[in-house]
Amino acid sequence: MPALIVMPSDAPAVKIAGVRSFGGEVRLYDRWTESREAIGAEIARDRGAVLVPPFDDPFVMAGQGTVGLEIVTQAGELGATVDAVLCGASGGGLVGGIGLAVERLSPRTEVYVIEPEAFDDHRRSLEAGERTGHGPGAVSICDALMAPMPGEVTWPVNRRTLKGGLTVTDAEVADAVRYAFSMLKLVIEPGGAVGLAALLAGRIPTQGRTIAVVCSGGNVDPDLYGRILRAEL
Amino acid sequence: MPALIVMPSDAPAVKIAGVRSFGGEVRLYDRWTESREAIGAEIARDRGAVLVPPFDDPFVMAGQGTVGLEIVTQAGELGATVDAVLCGASGGGLVGGIGLAVERLSPRTEVYVIEPEAFDDHRRSLEAGERTGHGPGAVSICDALMAPMPGEVTWPVNRRTLKGGLTVTDAEVADAVRYAFSMLKLVIEPGGAVGLAALLAGRIPTQGRTIAVVCSGGNVDPDLYGRILRAEL
Repeated sequence: MPALIVMPSDAPAVKIAGVRSFGGEVRLYDRWTESREAIGAEIARDRGAVLVPPFDDPFVMAGQGTVGLEIVTQAGELGATVDAVLCGASGGGLVGGIGLAVERLSPRTEVYVIEPEAFDDHRRSLEAGERTGHGPGAVSICDALMAPMPGEVTWPVNRRTLKGGLTVTDAEVADAVRYAFSMLKLVIEPGGAVGLAALLAGRIPTQGRTIAVVCSGGNVDPDLYGRILRAEL
Repeated sequence: MPALIVMPSDAPAVKIAGVRSFGGEVRLYDRWTESREAIGAEIARDRGAVLVPPFDDPFVMAGQGTVGLEIVTQAGELGATVDAVLCGASGGGLVGGIGLAVERLSPRTEVYVIEPEAFDDHRRSLEAGERTGHGPGAVSICDALMAPMPGEVTWPVNRRTLKGGLTVTDAEVADAVRYAFSMLKLVIEPGGAVGLAALLAGRIPTQGRTIAVVCSGGNVDPDLYGRILRAEL
């Protein structure tokens, strides 16, 4: 079916090209001055299209929650019980869906949300007990994790299901991207590598425990990737 | 158990570091002036160690043949019959093991050996009907595929089981490495990407057919990988 994707103008070129290569139309917007929700709603109204938000939607969360289902099922096939899941968050849909699945299927498993240290709105919200934004002037190489605060739909779920919030530095994220390159042979974008970064940086105890890490994206521009591999980041 | 790996001195640094990080000892040799077979035999004799050759051994071929078993089994689970398998070769152990598995389990599947165009000793041997070396002065970015001619143990198998030999240029290999990066999110070393390169370069017909491609290694130095991503290769 026809699809139009509303993307921030600073999205990786490889991500924009990827959408176009699959036949998708792209509408770029300015992350700092425009509202993608308003743009999406207007386009959906004009075209009679279905709006699929990136996270703040129960169906989107349910779909992303199949990651949690797979984690519990595949760990069980290996005879393991997962002690903790590490998953990044922007608006919190992926980690929220995973939290829901794990809560039902493996209630003793702890789910942690991992964020770039400057975009720590989930960590702040969990500590405050209410939806809270991150600090001002935030920058990060994790372009996919820049939502200003937890979603309206995701937050009530995440508030209940998440064990806690952890943060990682850009340098730790770069280390994780390099680790995935050299040891896992996987291309992971910075925003997809925050869980692995938290694990490698020792943010939670691992001795004798089974930890599942969600690596959730590989849309990274070749130039940025090369700079990370050369340890320039 | 203790392990000593005999590796060419021009092997990717990441590959050498990988062996050492797992506790392996490394003995480097000059690919052009020394015989790794002689070095390995001497070390095995001195230490009372078991010699595990890279390809010219029935057990090694059998182990590598499990790739063919997996291809046929997993294709069957998807309701597909594989029309052709594309797999690279240096000494021919991997493609030989795959050929044996496929011959038994899926006799109508054609197995093609893919080589860098300058290291086309399998293609030449298949055409000549006997073990033949590649041309002189060969160079390639595929450091893992530089054996001088088909193995003594692998050749009688490959002669019978292979449908034919195809070659790819370094530029086609670089294209395949970039494709794997951007579309598959997999880090594949040049020598591991020859099968994908042959597919993308249209070396065999694909319309309406099911093709299995073996991507068989990710040990590539970050600097070379970055140069490939920047299309300098």
